[in-house]
Amino acid sequence: MTHFDGTKVILDASEYPTHWYNIQADMKTLPPPPISAATGKPAKPEELAKIFPMALLQQEMTQERWIEIPEAVQEFYRLWRPSPLFRARRLEQLLDTPAEIWYKYEGVSPAGSHKLNTAIAQAYYNKEEGIENLVTETGAGQWGTALSIAAAFLGMKCTVYMVKISYNQKPYRRLLMESYGATVYASPTARTAAGRAILAEDPDSPGSLGIAISEAVEEALNRDDTNYALGSVLNHVLLHQTVIGLEAKKQLAAVDRYPDVVLASCGGGSNFGGIAFPFVQDILSGKAQPRVLAIEPEACPTLTQGAFAFDFGDTVGMTPIMQMYTLGHSYVPASIHAGGLRYHGDSPLVSQLYHDQVIGARAYGQTQVFQAALQFAKTEGILPAPESAHAIRGAIDEALAAREAGDRRIILFNLSGHGHFDLAAYDDYLTGRMKDVAFDPSWTEESLKQLPKVER
Amino acid sequence: MTHFDGTKVILDASEYPTHWYNIQADMKTLPPPPISAATGKPAKPEELAKIFPMALLQQEMTQERWIEIPEAVQEFYRLWRPSPLFRARRLEQLLDTPAEIWYKYEGVSPAGSHKLNTAIAQAYYNKEEGIENLVTETGAGQWGTALSIAAAFLGMKCTVYMVKISYNQKPYRRLLMESYGATVYASPTARTAAGRAILAEDPDSPGSLGIAISEAVEEALNRDDTNYALGSVLNHVLLHQTVIGLEAKKQLAAVDRYPDVVLASCGGGSNFGGIAFPFVQDILSGKAQPRVLAIEPEACPTLTQGAFAFDFGDTVGMTPIMQMYTLGHSYVPASIHAGGLRYHGDSPLVSQLYHDQVIGARAYGQTQVFQAALQFAKTEGILPAPESAHAIRGAIDEALAAREAGDRRIILFNLSGHGHFDLAAYDDYLTGRMKDVAFDPSWTEESLKQLPKVER
Repeated sequence: MTHFDGTKVILDASEYPTHWYNIQADMKTLPPPPISAATGKPAKPEELAKIFPMALLQQEMTQERWIEIPEAVQEFYRLWRPSPLFRARRLEQLLDTPAEIWYKYEGVSPAGSHKLNTAIAQAYYNKEEGIENLVTETGAGQWGTALSIAAAFLGMKCTVYMVKISYNQKPYRRLLMESYGATVYASPTARTAAGRAILAEDPDSPGSLGIAISEAVEEALNRDDTNYALGSVLNHVLLHQTVIGLEAKKQLAAVDRYPDVVLASCGGGSNFGGIAFPFVQDILSGKAQPRVLAIEPEACPTLTQGAFAFDFGDTVGMTPIMQMYTLGHSYVPASIHAGGLRYHGDSPLVSQLYHDQVIGARAYGQTQVFQAALQFAKTEGILPAPESAHAIRGAIDEALAAREAGDRRIILFNLSGHGHFDLAAYDDYLTGRMKDVAFDPSWTEESLKQLPKVER
Repeated sequence: MTHFDGTKVILDASEYPTHWYNIQADMKTLPPPPISAATGKPAKPEELAKIFPMALLQQEMTQERWIEIPEAVQEFYRLWRPSPLFRARRLEQLLDTPAEIWYKYEGVSPAGSHKLNTAIAQAYYNKEEGIENLVTETGAGQWGTALSIAAAFLGMKCTVYMVKISYNQKPYRRLLMESYGATVYASPTARTAAGRAILAEDPDSPGSLGIAISEAVEEALNRDDTNYALGSVLNHVLLHQTVIGLEAKKQLAAVDRYPDVVLASCGGGSNFGGIAFPFVQDILSGKAQPRVLAIEPEACPTLTQGAFAFDFGDTVGMTPIMQMYTLGHSYVPASIHAGGLRYHGDSPLVSQLYHDQVIGARAYGQTQVFQAALQFAKTEGILPAPESAHAIRGAIDEALAAREAGDRRIILFNLSGHGHFDLAAYDDYLTGRMKDVAFDPSWTEESLKQLPKVER
């Protein structure tokens, strides 16, 4: 039976989610379909089918509310799911707040973050359709690690184009992927036309996520047995992550709680959508009115400072064009430590919900984020990933506001991963070298002029 | 209710252990009391009371069978305990074995290993007796990390003498401890007489665990508000770790299983004692006859190649003298990657049980250990610590033997921690640079001549 031991809620096996929740079934306005970069017109399924399996393309488009989680995927999930839901009593005491702080912890996955929830599903559907190789890009390394594990589980090959500067600065992340059997290249490489073009211009190019995406997509386009996998932004990726929020909802219900506020860090949107969408469902259906907040870095404030417009998903303009909040695909975010949140755009689903004022957003500077991270580590024990720590900052501020207001607010946030591979960032903070990078609107003057023109 | 979801067993809160199991209550022969290094006679409690709290000294000596876990310690345990018990079905399939492989995973603790089980308890009892500062040494960093977290939880200061060569080679481990608020020194330091003496001889000394212990003990002796904490070997440390085996026993009982063989890696003995002693109790009482195996590295084969004799716990001869299996306190193990298993001696309790043939032992070379580690990572997802991987090697060999014999053996092992800070070791293995270091008895000819003489 589902039970609460005073610190965490443990779900009974009979309560494990068997379906993902598809928010497209309940949204009043759906994002427009993606536009082909080549034609400027709505992308045809056959274009996308060159790099994605049909099952995922169907999930991308469907408005069916509940999508069954394949039994094989559920079995993999049981290696770490359900993830625990903790009551952060010791943090509450430190803050002397009447609020209750609850957090879901996704760092228990072997990959150390929530990314494995979708990596397993994507690998599974690709394998079902006869694909033997998955190819992807990675920056900080969380996504590459997750896909490497998923590929190992399913006996598939995994190729990761890792941004060269990360490849050199984060050898342990690369080694982790290699330990699971993945092949990791420092991008740009001479293996692809995209990489060779960059290297011809600048043999010492440090690479970028945009370049790495181009190389990965090119490899997938050129090989029939190879598909591309993306770790965030797309509808099917957020769909798979809803297992987080579905579990959290049941776990909170087991202690007769419902959140007044739900928070998650937001880069491409998969972590945020994962915890938030099952609660957003209640808003859309009029059942409840929790405040739902996406937390982003001040240095890359896509929702809070971006334009709601059509833009490319990648930096170089190879991917389909989607309507989203964006700082412009040519915008280069300042170098901050939460690499997973340095994305110019955002998930079209999250963007639409923000545009429609169903959800809110807030931006923080990184020093206040790391301060919160250490308060959390010293009271709750877990050293959080810098990305995840954005949500902790938000939750602490809610708890402090509750203290001011004297209300017993129920706060829920998602702790998307641990920080075991981010200690250089903690070093910067502890030694006072870390600087805040407040957004300056002049930074996007140029990039917002370069948004693509589309016919609808 | 306790339940099995097909992959892991989840204990109901009503089943959480409330007492530690003290094997001294059931042993036919108890280890002799420790001998003072200064007098050569049994150590007086007041000598030990300078660096340990009375509650822990009592636990060291008592023959009471069940020791209540203080409610405050149980509350901390609930941050990650009970740890999951997994059935390694995918590993079984890979090995094509009729055996069942079950493993307990201690890497879910915020410290990433089993060490936090005793760190919390030790910090708690010290705090209860008015101690404000804990001081310890660390080599690879697992123990220092655990004590840093425990001290943060209890609002105590923590000072860690980290072997200088590890301090320089493993900056992330140091940073992890510092993130929890610990002060970490590269040992030898100029802060202690022991350190200054070493530096006077060799200003570039790389340090050693023995030197670091000397510095930590000296600081504890010299300050009334400061005590010393040890992460293994002593009776009270193994006592605290029995929470692992007690949980495992209940978890297996919930699926109507009892192990035919129990395995754990063994350095100082705390991980081994933790999982094994609750099953050894059944052997001692005649209730069951599982085979219980301590797995050690070929390069430091204390049980399988050592002498059963009185020896110092540390390298320099400052600590009390205990009867144990030892390679001689001046023995310097070859540099292998499982740093936590490079200890010349072993727990007196484990040593006595091995001497009495209640338990067995087996030694492996490191390349076969890393081969097992990667088989495990690719099937079960978790990248194990090199220390923990010794138990995996043992479990895989049992499963292969079961295949040969055609028997449905129930195998239980403890996976004591993850390998997120050990990727340099995996790199050595993957690139073929790792070498095996088989034990040569001539190595201990000198060190075994230097065992201390004792009066009993």
